[in-house]
Amino acid sequence: MADPVPATALQMRSLVTPDQTVELSLASVEVPTPGPTEVLIRVEAAPINPSDLGILLARADVLSATIVGPSDSPVVTMPLPDAVMRLMAGRVGISMPIGNEGAGTVVAAGSAPAAQALLGKTVAAAAGGGMYAQYRCVDAMFCLELPVGTPAIEGASSFVNPMTALCMVETMRRENHAALVHTAAASNLGQMLNRLCVSEQIPLVNVVRRPEHEDMLRSAGAAYVCNSAAPRFAADLTAALKETSATLAFDAIGGGRLASQILACMEAAASTSGGSTYSQYGSAVHKQVYIYGSLDPGPTELTRNFGFGWGVGGWLLTTFLGQIGLEGIARLRSRVAAELTTTFASTYTGEVSLAGALTLDALTAYSRQATGQKYLMRPDL
Amino acid sequence: MADPVPATALQMRSLVTPDQTVELSLASVEVPTPGPTEVLIRVEAAPINPSDLGILLARADVLSATIVGPSDSPVVTMPLPDAVMRLMAGRVGISMPIGNEGAGTVVAAGSAPAAQALLGKTVAAAAGGGMYAQYRCVDAMFCLELPVGTPAIEGASSFVNPMTALCMVETMRRENHAALVHTAAASNLGQMLNRLCVSEQIPLVNVVRRPEHEDMLRSAGAAYVCNSAAPRFAADLTAALKETSATLAFDAIGGGRLASQILACMEAAASTSGGSTYSQYGSAVHKQVYIYGSLDPGPTELTRNFGFGWGVGGWLLTTFLGQIGLEGIARLRSRVAAELTTTFASTYTGEVSLAGALTLDALTAYSRQATGQKYLMRPDL
Repeated sequence: MADPVPATALQMRSLVTPDQTVELSLASVEVPTPGPTEVLIRVEAAPINPSDLGILLARADVLSATIVGPSDSPVVTMPLPDAVMRLMAGRVGISMPIGNEGAGTVVAAGSAPAAQALLGKTVAAAAGGGMYAQYRCVDAMFCLELPVGTPAIEGASSFVNPMTALCMVETMRRENHAALVHTAAASNLGQMLNRLCVSEQIPLVNVVRRPEHEDMLRSAGAAYVCNSAAPRFAADLTAALKETSATLAFDAIGGGRLASQILACMEAAASTSGGSTYSQYGSAVHKQVYIYGSLDPGPTELTRNFGFGWGVGGWLLTTFLGQIGLEGIARLRSRVAAELTTTFASTYTGEVSLAGALTLDALTAYSRQATGQKYLMRPDL
Repeated sequence: MADPVPATALQMRSLVTPDQTVELSLASVEVPTPGPTEVLIRVEAAPINPSDLGILLARADVLSATIVGPSDSPVVTMPLPDAVMRLMAGRVGISMPIGNEGAGTVVAAGSAPAAQALLGKTVAAAAGGGMYAQYRCVDAMFCLELPVGTPAIEGASSFVNPMTALCMVETMRRENHAALVHTAAASNLGQMLNRLCVSEQIPLVNVVRRPEHEDMLRSAGAAYVCNSAAPRFAADLTAALKETSATLAFDAIGGGRLASQILACMEAAASTSGGSTYSQYGSAVHKQVYIYGSLDPGPTELTRNFGFGWGVGGWLLTTFLGQIGLEGIARLRSRVAAELTTTFASTYTGEVSLAGALTLDALTAYSRQATGQKYLMRPDL
């Protein structure tokens, strides 16, 4: 706390250039003085989430990277294919800061009581990016004060994944479903959702792709785990859907036929539940899949062999938060704070410094997005 | 009106047999005596809608038909492929009547005043199938009395298409969209929707597949017509979407990439509307496509290059009617009655008798579902 705040500090940047490259670098920027309601955070830990990778890498292939410059200030350049370049049209020439969330120590604060109250405290924050930096100035209202003694690392992922898990459950309730399906269920988020559903006694059907992930989730109390790579997948999933009556799925994968398979199994589960007569339009049960990630960026293929009571759509945390409003957000955030080291705990595969993140080894490791692996940015290292 | 009601009469039937065929025939059934609130209709005209073809043909290929029996009582048999047979599992062994709607003369009525009031009148009815028959007994509440002097033919299609067109507009309003997109827009339904939107001053983007259909709709007052077979389709559609701010589409085709293209063009229109900064999640505008038909039964392919604010789903008239309730239905039905020969008029390519419908020539003609072509069943011929 006694460390003097420097005049300038490092901030990671990603720039798509007109000549079809993306350039990653560390900019030396002026450290801002907090406005009346703001606090200056010395960032100590920020997770590398898929949403951060989207901005950082601009869909470039890290294997094509060339890196120049000194090891404490490397510049990474990667070419962008035509198709990707079209998608990036809106950000050409804009040097973008990165990092949706993180945690650290408040080293300066504005005059407002809410800001002053945080001085010297360890806080987590999510406020529109820019946490991959040594210092970040944010409004005090976006900060979550961590319990005394909690290291910044434990609060780094206190927003994106916890709020996503909670909002999946909120969506389920608002749209009158009784249970959930989740794909890529062995991810950090998936494990969190599993703990949340176990504690709330919400039936959750976990879909994974590897046997070891089945075991891991079952050890964590999951009652339903289906392996999409197993030959019995359709039968297993249908049985689980019938038992749970789950008619809502959240899919992190996006591409391919998984969403379609889930809808078809939901329809099969609804049709065998008996009582209804034949209809060419299928069961009267509404079946919904929300795609919230894009681990497979290929097209989503829907075979439409599941009647007419179905929907598939994009799902975005920020859009949903807009729907539940400030009061709803506050309620969810206080729940996160109370269970940060239990229900909403995250684990990390490795840590990288700002400069260390811009090496080929590190880029290759954290860009892989292997299920259950997550890296932590440590701007203080 | 003075014709005596016979003891038995003909009713068309479709039966999926355990040995993987579908069998079409004319059953001789007892003519029922109406219950207190029922009326007996001598059916004079019933349209052959896609929904009727679904039940009648059970997705069989009419070119594989063999027809036996006398010309006034033919029996058509068509084999069903394995994949189709699986979809038909729920109706094997059930001899199904066909015909969702139709019109004719009330020749007998129950004792209730509502039933008695219809005696001798020409009525249109839609009440759960079975209108491809010489006589059909239905509850008086399902009947729409046609204005005096209106021939039954003009009331035959007074339910499915008019209510679908009206409910598309209702859906638009309930889900807060400002304008509509419709595919297969040159169909009878499409022409009806165009007239409805012209009269209500709702911007409608008509998507067709042939130049002659463009002209036809423009002559009928359509301001926006885009040809999906034209090289300029994406540019034309985006321009029309930008002008109209249409963010809701009804798609009759289902298979292929058209739904995805529409979403991508909606996103392009939203993104060029200016004001917003770059987001990897796309625009904040919610874009929706409802698939209500399946002219292309192949898979729907979504490229997901339209951000995260999107939905695709099945849309079914009966489900929607359940949402707006009896009062809503009554309101829409009286509008249909008032504009049956104007906004909601249908035209027919040809007429077939019950027995005439079961000939190879007729089957081939009406099963083609060519845009703008529609056949009329005439059980009184």
